[in-house]
Amino acid sequence: MANTTPIFIAVIGVGGVGKCFLSQLQDLTIRRPSPKLTLCYIATSRKALYNDDYSAINVDGAINALANSSKTPPSLPDLVTYLTMSPGKAIIVDNTSSQDVADAYPTALKAGVSVVTPNKKAFSGSYKLWQDIFQAAAASGAKVYHESSVGAGLPVISTLKDLVETGDEITKIEGVFSGTMSFLFNSFAPVSGGGGKWSSEVKKAKELGYTEPDPRDDLNGLDVARKLTILARLAGLPVESPTSFPVESLIPKELESCSSGDEFLEKLPLFDHQMDEKKASVGNKVLRFVGSIDVATQSVKVGLQSFEPSHPIAALKGSDNIISFYTKRYGSNALIVQGAGAGGDVTAMGVTADLIKIIAQIA
Amino acid sequence: MANTTPIFIAVIGVGGVGKCFLSQLQDLTIRRPSPKLTLCYIATSRKALYNDDYSAINVDGAINALANSSKTPPSLPDLVTYLTMSPGKAIIVDNTSSQDVADAYPTALKAGVSVVTPNKKAFSGSYKLWQDIFQAAAASGAKVYHESSVGAGLPVISTLKDLVETGDEITKIEGVFSGTMSFLFNSFAPVSGGGGKWSSEVKKAKELGYTEPDPRDDLNGLDVARKLTILARLAGLPVESPTSFPVESLIPKELESCSSGDEFLEKLPLFDHQMDEKKASVGNKVLRFVGSIDVATQSVKVGLQSFEPSHPIAALKGSDNIISFYTKRYGSNALIVQGAGAGGDVTAMGVTADLIKIIAQIA
Repeated sequence: MANTTPIFIAVIGVGGVGKCFLSQLQDLTIRRPSPKLTLCYIATSRKALYNDDYSAINVDGAINALANSSKTPPSLPDLVTYLTMSPGKAIIVDNTSSQDVADAYPTALKAGVSVVTPNKKAFSGSYKLWQDIFQAAAASGAKVYHESSVGAGLPVISTLKDLVETGDEITKIEGVFSGTMSFLFNSFAPVSGGGGKWSSEVKKAKELGYTEPDPRDDLNGLDVARKLTILARLAGLPVESPTSFPVESLIPKELESCSSGDEFLEKLPLFDHQMDEKKASVGNKVLRFVGSIDVATQSVKVGLQSFEPSHPIAALKGSDNIISFYTKRYGSNALIVQGAGAGGDVTAMGVTADLIKIIAQIA
Repeated sequence: MANTTPIFIAVIGVGGVGKCFLSQLQDLTIRRPSPKLTLCYIATSRKALYNDDYSAINVDGAINALANSSKTPPSLPDLVTYLTMSPGKAIIVDNTSSQDVADAYPTALKAGVSVVTPNKKAFSGSYKLWQDIFQAAAASGAKVYHESSVGAGLPVISTLKDLVETGDEITKIEGVFSGTMSFLFNSFAPVSGGGGKWSSEVKKAKELGYTEPDPRDDLNGLDVARKLTILARLAGLPVESPTSFPVESLIPKELESCSSGDEFLEKLPLFDHQMDEKKASVGNKVLRFVGSIDVATQSVKVGLQSFEPSHPIAALKGSDNIISFYTKRYGSNALIVQGAGAGGDVTAMGVTADLIKIIAQIA
């Protein structure tokens, strides 16, 4: 029985993840010709490319065609209207990190348009938005998948959902959720001892492209706090926002008012002693930047913790993430998922895998 | 949009996994009343319980009712006929390890009846059966899910499928795939040095219920070979059978002809020196029983290998499994999944999670 419902795909965002996703989508349409997938819309925040008759945009070359398009993007409600009138089912793939796009998910879902995204904003913003999203999806039957919002393509969200949906009780979730923080601490405080100066490691991480353009956006801990918010909510805790629990920032107080990331990086060496002191204070253990969720005490926190060198969190390499799920069924030995938690290809992989899962349900 | 297609579930096998599954199914029907799930058939190899009008069997108490039933199981083709005539969609949940039941999957799938199972036999038997199963499913649109056939409820099959379906290239899969072997080597050759006598550890493992009734069924490596066969096929290698590649048996040649597991256990201490020699031969490394698949060279093998103490495979605890996926996208740092790979509850969890995924697609 071949699936026959045509599926129309609207892609928003063609940055690092968006480009990798388009390449995977092209590959997918070749390897899985059924059901018929049609890329009918592609846009950045300033330009859009689409045809009024929903005829297909060639995935190969879509980015160039978009650059040459003279159309500006319609409002998000207008995009939803356009998609609901398509002669099939529609899916929005949001490859941005935009709060505005995230805020439109309930409108899309209510109208029966499914959503796939690595964008953390919708799921880690206000608890009201979270509720609106899942209530809209439940009411219309549209799907919303966001594997890559935590740990990129690693099976984190799907594993947590399987545990919860099959009736296991999550007791604790703990891990390293930031590739940037992983790289920084694996270099600054390696298990083997030694390690570089903190400010040098931050500079190196920026040069290697492991940080945001302004490294303070990694060091303030908010990215990890957003991921913890998502996991805590999936585990059943009604966390109000990523600023409603303790988050330790690694930005020295004195540098909070720097006017630019460059100024920050220039002055950071003056405060290396602060990180050296923290490193020395843990003795034979090693310092790591982790997030944890204790379900029984409803406590969520993000910050520095020390680990025995034999602990899996201490043994992490490169910019890998590690996520440990402690549950009633799994007992004292956690279910652990580990691997690259950032990068265009692996993030896009989570998006594409989600897309395939939605198609299997709606086609 | 509530799903409205009624789903009829036929459960075969009520052993350790089957009992845990029924408990999770009961929980599921309470927490997710829609779509309507009806347990319409339950059987062991000798007894069956079902109503000609497909009326529901109460999940709570089903095992007792089955014990009191005077019906014998119909043939598997007759069961499939019964299910195809149900007023809805049907799913067989095979909680046995029976080859006979496995051989009937193509018939069920061809008739549009989906299959969920932790039973390795169907996917690790002849390559012909593997092809028949997936061709039947593709033709009818029925689904076949078997997460718990490798690593119990750990996200192993689903992760591998996501990698492959999104177009990643698997280069290598490596890991500890047997809870029994994991326990034995973590005790016999711990990273910290020392460790008990091999024969004592085998006895202890049997007493703790970590081995099959006859421990030779674990020590011959066939269980691991079956799991490797499944993963290799999913990675694209047309492995003919679990005996078509090198599998190292830990049964001393001299004991291959023992008439019983008890006789084997009694005589095993006479051969402890063999394992001691193997352990001594790896120096500062530690011995582990692993399976590996090298996709480029199409090489699959199962047996002893030595690992640096800092290697994740060496650091495993208790009876945990660890599975490392090396792929083009993930580069030199593998995507790793780790945790309990055996036990009724976690095995049933994989079955229940699969069932939920099938329901989402067919309801």
